[in-house]
Formats: sequence, structure tokens, C-alpha cells
Amino acid sequence: MLYSQLFTKTKKQAPKDEQTVNAKLLCRAGFVNKTMAGVYSYLPLGLLVLRKIEQIIRQEMNAIGGQEVFLPALQPAENWQITGGWDEIEVLFKIKSRTERDYALGQSHEEIITPLVQSYVNSYKDLPLYIYQIQQKYRDELRAKSGILRGREFGMKDMYSFDLNQSDFDCFYAKAKQAYLKIYQRCGLTAKVTEASGGDFSEKISYEFMVLTDAGEDDILYCDQCEYCINVDIAKNKAGDNCSKCQKGKLKKARASEVGNVFDLGQKYTKAFDFYVVNEKGIKVYPIMGCYGIGTTRLMGVIVEKYFDDKGIIWPLSVAPFQACLINLGGQAAYQKAKEFYQALTKAGIEVLWDDRQESAGVKFADADLIGIPIRLVLSDKTQGQVEWKKRNEEKTELLSIEQAMQKLKPEI
Amino acid sequence: MLYSQLFTKTKKQAPKDEQTVNAKLLCRAGFVNKTMAGVYSYLPLGLLVLRKIEQIIRQEMNAIGGQEVFLPALQPAENWQITGGWDEIEVLFKIKSRTERDYALGQSHEEIITPLVQSYVNSYKDLPLYIYQIQQKYRDELRAKSGILRGREFGMKDMYSFDLNQSDFDCFYAKAKQAYLKIYQRCGLTAKVTEASGGDFSEKISYEFMVLTDAGEDDILYCDQCEYCINVDIAKNKAGDNCSKCQKGKLKKARASEVGNVFDLGQKYTKAFDFYVVNEKGIKVYPIMGCYGIGTTRLMGVIVEKYFDDKGIIWPLSVAPFQACLINLGGQAAYQKAKEFYQALTKAGIEVLWDDRQESAGVKFADADLIGIPIRLVLSDKTQGQVEWKKRNEEKTELLSIEQAMQKLKPEI
Repeated sequence: MLYSQLFTKTKKQAPKDEQTVNAKLLCRAGFVNKTMAGVYSYLPLGLLVLRKIEQIIRQEMNAIGGQEVFLPALQPAENWQITGGWDEIEVLFKIKSRTERDYALGQSHEEIITPLVQSYVNSYKDLPLYIYQIQQKYRDELRAKSGILRGREFGMKDMYSFDLNQSDFDCFYAKAKQAYLKIYQRCGLTAKVTEASGGDFSEKISYEFMVLTDAGEDDILYCDQCEYCINVDIAKNKAGDNCSKCQKGKLKKARASEVGNVFDLGQKYTKAFDFYVVNEKGIKVYPIMGCYGIGTTRLMGVIVEKYFDDKGIIWPLSVAPFQACLINLGGQAAYQKAKEFYQALTKAGIEVLWDDRQESAGVKFADADLIGIPIRLVLSDKTQGQVEWKKRNEEKTELLSIEQAMQKLKPEI
Repeated sequence: MLYSQLFTKTKKQAPKDEQTVNAKLLCRAGFVNKTMAGVYSYLPLGLLVLRKIEQIIRQEMNAIGGQEVFLPALQPAENWQITGGWDEIEVLFKIKSRTERDYALGQSHEEIITPLVQSYVNSYKDLPLYIYQIQQKYRDELRAKSGILRGREFGMKDMYSFDLNQSDFDCFYAKAKQAYLKIYQRCGLTAKVTEASGGDFSEKISYEFMVLTDAGEDDILYCDQCEYCINVDIAKNKAGDNCSKCQKGKLKKARASEVGNVFDLGQKYTKAFDFYVVNEKGIKVYPIMGCYGIGTTRLMGVIVEKYFDDKGIIWPLSVAPFQACLINLGGQAAYQKAKEFYQALTKAGIEVLWDDRQESAGVKFADADLIGIPIRLVLSDKTQGQVEWKKRNEEKTELLSIEQAMQKLKPEI
């Protein structure tokens, strides 16, 4: 992509009301634009990152047998009345049509997916099933905060599992947990699996996937020796206590941000919709459901909270809008050389943003650092036909031939 | 994909309240599920078709300089009050939050894109700009009808152009028109460009792209000799009259379905938001805007209305969920052969649905015809290691070797 054709521009200042690193940097660099409190527009650079995150999630959901669907956000009130959510869930947006019909705006999709799956399941042999979607969600938050971490409209992958019994659910949960950890790893994050309360969805304990960051909204206690991790809201211990699981480590307290969750929904929704099957022993069974969420836009925000410096964002390669940023400086010779290099890179399938503007080195370098593309390639009269290679997260530069640079870029795709 | 793992099943009967061909066939074949009147869930097969339609549109929008964004559906009432749409647009869904804030649910995005683009345009040199998105839209329709052709929630590509003057707009409109015609052609449709009223958006004439079909909701008059075409709502002529444009042809009347539209918005929105630039002569200019819509889910429905028979849907290859449907019949030998063939096809990048179920030839053939995949490949004990090749829209079958079938499938991708 040519920088000169991008309609967004970097900004020196973030909107005054933005407090968090993710919102400040994403707004300044032109990834998102604040439409109103808790609601953001995703601009060309931001959409590129979001689509990469979504694709990583999609691949890992498909790998554990997930089938993708796309469910509506505009939902009949009746479904929410059946489960009690209409009166109980405070963040549920409600809409009245001009013919006085009541609708809910989906904050989750149990009320839609349960009767949908029910209509296709004729026998216990049709289970288990794992259905997911990647879609916008809506929550009537009292206060929107933390930039794109907690909004009134946000992107989410939500998967729903339908199993015949608890042990099948437990077995799939273990698989889903591994898929989740792999997703975070592919996005450059390390997540801790944390016990938490089930909230609106379940009376059982839920699992939250937490990334340690000061921008987080939760406090967790984690063992410094084993995997044990618990949200302080439900913890009976405190920082400094011995770990009750491994008996070796000590509990530490940290600020963390949730990047995913799993709820064991039990039979709450299948019973509400009278969705049952007759099992191989002739017994009527209500399937056990699980709900597995990952906020896609939130994940984008948490990545920024983990990867930035005083100059801007430092995207992990896997979710960067472009692999490389090509900059030409000085006269026509460098411009021509850059044009050829850009065409060669594009032809080789390497995603590159070419800053072809007539701007100073200072402006181009500052914008490249703010946008945070992993590799910077500079062609100038000084580099004499070679290219200056610099990683966003390193100070070191090196001069390479065009061929060497091409070779070095290719294996990293 | 393995048919046995698909959670949807074909149904003998469509929901009783569905009147139209698109809704009946798409529901029966498992592409969509009716969540409520005017609101559908897109199931795995339906999502595959929808993503292909979206990708065709995306490619053609990018080809004419479009930049993709993703704007929110939840929108501040203030923006709609500025343009007057809050009180004037009957189909606008309105939401009140629990803190008594007013929101609109986007039925179009002029109110969001105009101030967004304004915030990045500093000079007349930043124009023209063409920004688009593919996203859900919401309309508070009194009556939802025609299946996925007219819903309360539906998918849409909406592009907005910002030009410095009318002649630049006209020039881009001509480009966009060609891109639109190419999109329909790639989807297997022939569209007529039709003059129509500007509706809620504009006082000027708008252009609708119309496909002739009895399922349509509009009547058009078109010339049998030239391109002239007009919606009867604004026509001063009637069927049988001479064409006033070419002076040669006669006007014919036909039922048609809208698959896209273009509105010349003039300066309505740029003036409302006080979005101006100073041009090269030092004169203050409010950019001319255009709005270019294509209903993605509606397009899917119109394709079905054009391509079906008494057995089911007949997808054009370009938007089919799979290129081929592989069916094994009879014993273990054919199953093994099909398994190997399926693996080879998948490895070659050919999208294939393998009906690996233990069902009769009658059931498998009927389902393949209903789902409407362009090519049917049958392996049975009778085909003796060869494969029976049949196109969905032809009666003729032919026996091919596996290698011949592979060769024949590849170039059609």
C-alpha cells in the first residue's frame, strides 16, 4: 500500500479524553477513530490488524472442530424472556420498533444459538457440536473506559459447545483451553488461566484468560511456581500465602486484563428451551453447553498495551498491518529504486507500506515508529543502492543488498 | 468439508410463513435460518456464499481506489439530529440507554463517515477519497418480506465518495457504475442501470441497479434497443411507448429486484457537518458526496431467485459454497476411493463437499441438487475406479478417470 493514498494521517495529540495507552496510540497512529464513548470506527490500518487477529482465531477454532456461522445482533425479546435475561441482564440494550415490538441487541448469543442448534439435532448421535461466530456485540455499559478494552460496541468471537455429558464437556474444554493459549501465543501474548465467578451466565466457576498488564481491570493472584491463578474477587488467599495447589510456590498479586473466558453453562439454556435428546440408553438428556469468548477488538488493545514504547506501537509480526515499512529519502534516484523494490516485494507476497510522501526523514521515521510496523527499510542517496534494515524494537541498523533484504523478509512470512 | 460433520441438515419443508423462492430454498438447504421476521442467521454453507460475494465486491471496490473501514452500528443521536435524519427517517431504529442516552442503529453511515473523513482532510489536495465498508445494517421495516431480500438486519457494502466538484463526482460515478456491473456479472447476474427517486437521501435522481426477476419489488420500463431504463415510480412514459433516448426501441415493462444503488448526495451532508476545504483558487468548497450501496445478503437472495429449478438451487461457480460435491455410493471400496480423491482435491486447493454419509443414492443426489453445488462427482462400485461427472444445470453425465476429473476441475477455479 502507498502511504500517500492512505486517507488517515498520524496525529501529534490523542483526543483529550483518552486515558489509556491503547486508545492514545491507536487514535494517534490512525488505526481507530472514536465515534463516541465506548464506540470506535476501525480505519484501514486497524482493520488490517483486526482481520489478522480474527484469522488466527478462526484457524484455531476450525482446528478443534468449530463450525463458523453468523448470527444476528437484532434479536427477538421472546428468546431473552424465556431465559430470564430480559429482566436480569443490566447491560442488555433493548429496542422498541415503531410497531411496539421488543428487540434485544445481542450482548451474547446463547438465546439465538440454542434454539438454532436444537432445530438441527434429531438424535444424540448429532452431538457433540461446536459452533462459533466472529461478530459485533453490544453492552449498555454505565461507563465505557480503557479505550477499545471495554466498549459499548465491540468485536467478539463466541463459540458454543453442545455435549452429551459433563465428561465430554470437560474433555472439549481442555482442547479449547489449549487452542486459546495457542491463539494468544500466536498474537505475541502469554495468558494465565484464571478461576473466576460465572457472572450473569453461570453459577459455576468460569475460567478467564488473563494477560499481566497495568492497563488491566482485574487483580489476580498467581503462583510463582505452578499454573495456579485466581481472580482476587473469589480468592480465599492473599498475596504472600503459600500456593495450595503445588504447595511449593508463593502467591503473587498482579494487575491483569482479560483476553478471553470460558463459561460452563451446564443445562441452563438447554433446559430453558427444552432442548433434549434421548441417549443410547433411552434416557432423556439435556445437553451441557459451554460458551467460549474472545474479544477481538479488546485483544487488539491488549497487544498495544504490551507492545509499545515512547515512540509508538511495536506490533508483533503475526498481527502487524504490514510486515515492512519502506521509506525513500532524498532525490529521484532513491524514489525510483524504492518503486522497483516496492513492486518486487508486493509481487513476492510481502505486505509492505511504502511511505512515498515527499516528507523529511524525521517525519517519515516518526510516523513509521508510531504506526509500529516490525521492519523498517530505508533507501536513500546515502545507502547507495543498498537498503538500511532496522527492526522496530531494536536500535541496530544494517546495510543489505536488495536481494539480501528480500531473502530475509521471505522466511518470516 | 465432510458432509457428516456439517451441523445443518436439509429439510423437506420450508417454514410455513416463507413465501419466496430464496427463503424457501435457502432455509430447506441449510444456508440460512429464520431467527424472526426479517432477521436470519447465516449457517456454514450460507456464510461461505456470503464471504465469496463480499470478496468479489471488495476486489472491485479496491480496484477503483476504495479504502476499507469498519464503522459502528451503534451511533450517537447527535449526528442524526445534525442532519435531520433523527426525525425524518421512519426506518431508523432508536435506542435509549439505561442512563437515558439516545442512540441510532445504523441504517446507513453518512452521519458517521462525514465527520470521520472531515477529521483527516486538511486540504483540497487530500481529495478525492473513496471509503467503503461491508457491515450489518438495520431498518425498522413495517413488514419484512421476500426472505433475505428485505430484512430488518442485513449485510451491506456501502461506499462513500468525496469529490471537490460535480465533474469529478460524475467521473467517479462512471467508474463505480462499471465496477458495479462487473460485480453483478462475476456473480452471474445481468443488471440494468435504472433512474429512480433519491428517497430519504437526496433530492436528485438516483441510480438503481436492477435484475429482472418476478421476485422483485419494483416495476421498471426498459428500452428493447438501448440501455435506457427507468423505475415506473418516476417514469412519464408507459409500456409500448417509443424510447425517448434512442428513438428506435420500444419500452417494455418488467418486474425487477434492486441489487445496488447510487445516490448523488450533493453537499447535503458536508454542509450539515460544515465540512469544507479551501480550493486552489482560495475558495471555500463543500465536497460533493456520493453513496454507493450493494446489499450483500440481498444479492445472495437475488442469485437464488435467478438460479433454481424444482430440485433446488443452482449456484454460479463464482459464489458457490463449494466447486464440487463428491458422493460415494455402495461399499467400502468406493468409500476408500472417495477418501483418496477427497484428499487429492483438497490438497490441490479445490473446494469440495464430500457427502461421506451412509445414505442411499436417492438421498445423496436429492441433497446435492437442493444445495446446488455446480459439479457432482460420483464414485460407486459401478463406476469401477472412474468418476461420474455431472453439472448441476445439465442432465448429461460422463465417466472420467480421476486424473481427467482433477484436470477438468483445476482450470475452473
